[in-house]
Amino acid sequence: MFHRVFQLSSSVCQTTVLRFHVSKHHQRNMHCRKIIYEEYGDPAKVANLVEDTLPDKLDEKQVLLKMIVAPVNPADINIIQGVYPIKPPLPMTGGFEGIGDVVAVGSCVTNLVPGDRVVSDGAMGTWCTAGIFDSEQLIKVSKDTDVYALSGISSNPCTAYRMLHDFVSLNKNDVIIQNGANSACGQNVIQLANIFGYISINIIRNRPEPDLENLKNHLKSLGASYILTEEELRTTDLFKSGFLPKPRLGINNIGGKSSTEVLRTLNNGGVMVTYGGMSKQPVIVPTASFIFKDIQLRGFWMTRWRNENAHTKQYDQMYNELIQFMKNGKLIAPAHKTLPLDSFQEALENTVTSKGFIGHKYFLNLQQ
Amino acid sequence: MFHRVFQLSSSVCQTTVLRFHVSKHHQRNMHCRKIIYEEYGDPAKVANLVEDTLPDKLDEKQVLLKMIVAPVNPADINIIQGVYPIKPPLPMTGGFEGIGDVVAVGSCVTNLVPGDRVVSDGAMGTWCTAGIFDSEQLIKVSKDTDVYALSGISSNPCTAYRMLHDFVSLNKNDVIIQNGANSACGQNVIQLANIFGYISINIIRNRPEPDLENLKNHLKSLGASYILTEEELRTTDLFKSGFLPKPRLGINNIGGKSSTEVLRTLNNGGVMVTYGGMSKQPVIVPTASFIFKDIQLRGFWMTRWRNENAHTKQYDQMYNELIQFMKNGKLIAPAHKTLPLDSFQEALENTVTSKGFIGHKYFLNLQQ
Repeated sequence: MFHRVFQLSSSVCQTTVLRFHVSKHHQRNMHCRKIIYEEYGDPAKVANLVEDTLPDKLDEKQVLLKMIVAPVNPADINIIQGVYPIKPPLPMTGGFEGIGDVVAVGSCVTNLVPGDRVVSDGAMGTWCTAGIFDSEQLIKVSKDTDVYALSGISSNPCTAYRMLHDFVSLNKNDVIIQNGANSACGQNVIQLANIFGYISINIIRNRPEPDLENLKNHLKSLGASYILTEEELRTTDLFKSGFLPKPRLGINNIGGKSSTEVLRTLNNGGVMVTYGGMSKQPVIVPTASFIFKDIQLRGFWMTRWRNENAHTKQYDQMYNELIQFMKNGKLIAPAHKTLPLDSFQEALENTVTSKGFIGHKYFLNLQQ
Repeated sequence: MFHRVFQLSSSVCQTTVLRFHVSKHHQRNMHCRKIIYEEYGDPAKVANLVEDTLPDKLDEKQVLLKMIVAPVNPADINIIQGVYPIKPPLPMTGGFEGIGDVVAVGSCVTNLVPGDRVVSDGAMGTWCTAGIFDSEQLIKVSKDTDVYALSGISSNPCTAYRMLHDFVSLNKNDVIIQNGANSACGQNVIQLANIFGYISINIIRNRPEPDLENLKNHLKSLGASYILTEEELRTTDLFKSGFLPKPRLGINNIGGKSSTEVLRTLNNGGVMVTYGGMSKQPVIVPTASFIFKDIQLRGFWMTRWRNENAHTKQYDQMYNELIQFMKNGKLIAPAHKTLPLDSFQEALENTVTSKGFIGHKYFLNLQQ
C-alpha cells in the first residue's frame, strides 16, 4: 500500500494501523460481508454476497465505518447493469448511499471521531457490514434521527431540494406540478414543497382500489396539496377555472405522454425539469410551448450538481436544512421495505422492474 | 375622430391636417391600395386588394408613409388564418413588416421628418401603397441600403441576432448548428454567425440535383461553414473525430426527428432554441439528454422579445448593428421573388405550403 505522509500546519499525517482485539490472546483484521459484482450485467446474476477482510491500515483521510442501513436505488441497479454514465472499476461493492458509525479515522481526519454517525455523500460501495471510505464523502449526522430517512439523504431528498430551488424562484403559495409523485423522490418533493409553503399538484398512474385510495392517503399524509391520476389531470378544471394559478415549475420523472401533459399545464415562462424517464419514452414537446409560451426544459442529475458544488456554502446549507427537517420528523423516508443483507436479491430484482414502480423503496439492514 | 391635445415641454401637440394638391384647382385626401381581410380564414379566400382613402388627419404621434416594399412571412399567413397568438381586430390590412418613405408626421413626432426612410418594427398593416402608422413602431434607416434586406429586418434578422446572443455566451470559433438552414431566418443565422466569427453547421433536407448543389452553393456564398443534409448529419464524422468541437448552441426551425438529430450533436450543457416547427411534428427529446448531458431546451419569439425590450439599450444596439451590416452588404436579403401588389395571391398561396419551404421568400412591390 502506498504510504503517503504529508505535512499539515502542525501535525504529520500518517497511515493508521488497525487491529481489533477479539480475545486477550488474539488480534485480527476486521471482517465484513458485502455485495460485490465482478462484471457488469444483470444484477440478479452478477451480484454476490461475500465475506472479506478489511485492509489493516487507514490512509490519512480514510474512515472505517460499521454500516447500519443502505438503500437500493434505481441508479444502483443501472450502475451494476453497466448502463449508467458512471462505471466504477471492477470488482466493486454495490451501493452509493448508506448510514454507519465511525469505528476509526485516519490521522488527518479532523472533523470525525470514533462513535460519530455519518451518511455517504457520493461514497461508492455502501452495501457492506463495514467498509473504508474517504472522509470527504461522509457527512456527520445526529444519532437521534431516523436512520432510514438519513441513509438515503444524498439522492432523493437532495434532488428534490435542488429541483425546488435552482430552476424557478418560487414564492410561498406558488404552484408546482410533478408526475411519478409516488416515487421515492416524488415523496420528498411533496414533503419539501409542503415545508416551503408551495402548493403541489401530484400526478400518479391510475390503479385498482383500494391501492389508489391508499396511495392518495399516503401522499396526502406527506403534505400533498392535490393528487390526480393522469386521466384526472387531462380533464381537471383546477387551472382553467382560475381556482389555482398555473404551475411555474414542473418536475418530470416519467417522460412520454405524461411529461407532455405536465408541461401543458405550465404557466407562460414555466420550467419543466426532467430527472427520470420511468416510461422509457422520450419527452415530447409541442413547438408552440417553446415559442409562444416560452416554456423552458431543463434536466437535473444530482451527481453532476455534487461534482460541481460539493462543500460549497449552498451545499452545506442544503444538508443542514435537510438533516434538520429529518430530525424534526418533517421529512421522513419514502414508503419502504427493509431486508436483511442475505435477502439482497429480492431488492435487486424488484427495484427496477418492467412494471415501473413497485410502491416502496428497499433498504438493506446491514447488521442482520 | 378623437382629437387629443397634450402639453409637451415647450409645444402643444395637435392633430395634423393632411391635404394633397392634385392640381392647382383641386385638393383631395390621399388614396391607397391595400390588401385587407375582413374575416379570419384561408388567405387565398379572405384577403382582397382594395382601394381606399386615407384619413385626412394625423394624430400627434402618427406618421404617413408611402410604402416601397413589404415581405410576406409565414407569420402573416398564420395571422390571417386566425391561428396565431396575435389576432388583430377586423377588418385589418395584412403584413407587419415593410419599408417606406415618410410623407407627413404628426405634430409631436420629433425624430422623423418628411423624406426620411423607415422600416416597420411591429407596425401592423404594411401591405399597402400608403398608410398611417405609430411613429414608435418605425425605425429610421438610410436610403443607400438595399430595401429588400431592410424591409424584413424586424423578423428574421432580429430573430437570428437574438438567438445568437441571448442563450449561450458564444466566443469566436465556437460551433453552432441549425436545421432549416435555407429558411429566411436560417440564411440570416448563417450570415450573422459568419460576421460574429462562429462556425455554423447548417442542416437542409435532401433534394434532387442540381437543386441540392445550387442551394449548397448559395448558403456557402452567404458564409455557411458546413452544409449537411439530414442524412449526412446522421453519419457525419465531424464531431466524433474531434475535427470540430460539439456545438454549444442548436437552432431549431423544424421539430420532429430533425430537432432530435440537432440536439444529439450538442455538447454537454448545450442549448437548443426552437423558433419554428415547419415539420408540424413536436420536439422529441431523449431523457438522458436532459439528465446526463444537461441539455437545455428554450424557445424564441421575436414578438415577445420586442414587447419586453423595445427601445432599450440592447434593442438600439441590435438595430444599429443590423442596419450597419446591411449597409456594408454583409447581411443581404434571403433568396426571394418580388411580385407586384396585384399578384399578392401567389405570395399568399406559396409562403406556407404543405411541402414546407419553397426556396424563396416573397416580397410585395408596393409601388407597382
